This record gives sequence, C-alpha cells and structure tokens, in this order.
Amino acid sequence: MTEQKSPRRRGRPKGVSDSRERIIAAAVDEFGEQGYDGSTIRSIAARAGVDSALVHHYFGTKADLFAEAVGIPLRPDIDVPAIVAGPRDEVGERLVRYVLEAFEQPEVRRRGVMLLRTALGSRLTTPLLAGFLSRELIGRIARSLGTEDADLRASLVASQIAGMLIARYLLRLPALAAAPVDELVGRVGPTVQRYLFD
Amino acid sequence: MTEQKSPRRRGRPKGVSDSRERIIAAAVDEFGEQGYDGSTIRSIAARAGVDSALVHHYFGTKADLFAEAVGIPLRPDIDVPAIVAGPRDEVGERLVRYVLEAFEQPEVRRRGVMLLRTALGSRLTTPLLAGFLSRELIGRIARSLGTEDADLRASLVASQIAGMLIARYLLRLPALAAAPVDELVGRVGPTVQRYLFD
Repeated sequence: MTEQKSPRRRGRPKGVSDSRERIIAAAVDEFGEQGYDGSTIRSIAARAGVDSALVHHYFGTKADLFAEAVGIPLRPDIDVPAIVAGPRDEVGERLVRYVLEAFEQPEVRRRGVMLLRTALGSRLTTPLLAGFLSRELIGRIARSLGTEDADLRASLVASQIAGMLIARYLLRLPALAAAPVDELVGRVGPTVQRYLFD
Repeated sequence: MTEQKSPRRRGRPKGVSDSRERIIAAAVDEFGEQGYDGSTIRSIAARAGVDSALVHHYFGTKADLFAEAVGIPLRPDIDVPAIVAGPRDEVGERLVRYVLEAFEQPEVRRRGVMLLRTALGSRLTTPLLAGFLSRELIGRIARSLGTEDADLRASLVASQIAGMLIARYLLRLPALAAAPVDELVGRVGPTVQRYLFD
C-alpha cells in the first residue's frame, strides 16, 4: 500500500515519510482488528508510537485516514453530501452517476472491488465497511434530509448503490455489466430519488 | 452438509443414501471448481462414479441439484417465475416479501448469508452465484417479460434484492436491520415494480 505513495513523497524529508508510513500501517491494522467505530485517532497513534496531534496533522479526520488506509481515491464522505445539497430533483441521478463514473476508472474499480470482497467475505471485516458507510455516508445524507425516517431512506439508497456495484462489478451480470453509464443513471437514478424524497 | 439430511434419509436402504451423499459431495466440489455454467449433470455423475441417469433420478435438474448442494431450502428458480406470472401490479411487492420472509427464517438466513459471503468473498466462487442467478432467476424473469431490455430489467431487480439482503443481513445497517418486513415491502416493492414494468 505504501509503495503507491512514493510519487507524492518526493522531496519530503525521510523522517516524515517514515512517520506517515508507520501511521498508515498502524491504521490498516487497527481498522482491521477494531473496525471503523472501534478505532480512534488516539488508538492508531499509540499503535504507531506517535502523538495523536501528528496523525491529525498528516491525515486530518478518522474518515480521511480511513480513505488513505484503504487506498481508494474516492471520498464519498465529502462528495456525497455535496451532491445531496445540490439541486433536489437531480440528486438521485447525480449520486448514481458519481458512483458509476468513479468505478469506471480502473484504479478505483480495482480497489473498490477488493474492498467490497474483503468486507463482505469475512464476518470480521464486514463491520468495518458498515461502520464507515453508517457514520460517513448514511449519517450525513440522513442529517441533510432531516426527516424522521431519514436513516432508513439513506440506508435504502446505500442498499441499491451497493447492489448495483456488486451486480455490475463483482457478479458481472451480463446485462448490467454491458449497460452504458447513462442507461444505468436513467434507470437507477429515479430509485435513489424516490428513496430520498418520496 | 450431509448430516442435515439424515432426518429425510430415515428408512432408506444404506446403498441409496451412500450414492446420494457421493453425488452431493461431487456436486459441491464440481460447482466450486467449475462454476454453475461449467458444471453438468454428466460431469458431476462422473466425479461421483455413478451414471448420469441416477443423478437425474435422485435430484432432477441441475438447478435442483445446486439447491440441494448449497443446502438452501429456498427455490427462487421455481417460486420467482410463479410470482412474476401472478397479478401484474403486485409483482414488485410480492417478490420483495417472498425474499424477506424467507430470510426471516433463521435457517434460510444462516445459509443464505454464508452463501453470499462465500460467493462474494472470492473471485473463484463469484461466478457460481452469478451463473445460478443468470440462468435460473434473471433468465426466467426476462423470458416472462419478453421485452427487448428484459435482461437488463431483471438484472436491476436482482441488484436491488441482493443489495437489500446484503445491507440488512450482512452489513446490518441499523435502520435497515430494524425495519419490519412490511415497511421494506412498501419501500422496495415499488422499485422492483418500476424496474420490471415502467
């Protein structure tokens, strides 16, 4: 995981890159063992033998560090709330397009498929993905909705988006794998829209 | 897998139960190695050292044998086409209710979750589930629709149903895991209905 960071490390003093790499390694271990909810910046810092302030300084929030640790160049915790805050009658289609256009990039798809496989394949790692989705995605969408059933609405959106990704990129159901992005946006977008607002 | 069959074997002559068990064991191995599409009654019979006719005699079709081999007391290849052939304006809700009521049974849920975990967790076993869904479920729904985009419609249905099961029973997203069946039927049913007919 750390090799891919070398282009961004160019020019940094050696000590800095060592600390960053120790923190990433500690985060991978800690998230893997404790789950997303059970891990804290403090526990990761302790594991890496550095101060919490240094972790915050290099990586920001726990969600930032998680994204860095799983290595997916995609930040639903930031991008999705921005989409949900946009024009209301386009939210469903924009969300579906955002996810599909991301997964059409080979590097996102490769890591995303690996993350889904790992998270779903083992009882131990499933809560890691569930915790991240709940806190950083579903929770944020739900707050922006503000209705009493907002958590259920946001979770239904997550269920259709996860199902679409799994059916297209893991199961590779032929008709879904072959469909152009625009076609899927037109078919699945209204589902997401209805779960959110109807 | 074979222990659970003993209640149904009571009274059968010993030779019969031996052949049945050898065939099941061969089917589990063959499906696991060759996938659903790559396995045939003939190849499974050869592996078990019996005649193909005996496999047909005990288990019927390849779909029957697969259901027996994975041990899930649920037959979407039979039940789902029956639902799709029923009153058209209720198909979406009836499909969602059928799947959820099945998974609310602890034994179905336990084996279903295990099948989903196994199938999604490994690149080797994913095609097994995809092949079964494509041939026995999506293909049957698509034929009953008869439209040009029937495969895509049926695959979208599969994506939402799989996503709902994964979100509720594997990820256990709190709002989805806590929702009563009727509530989910009312929310997800219209999605399935729209994918099929709108």
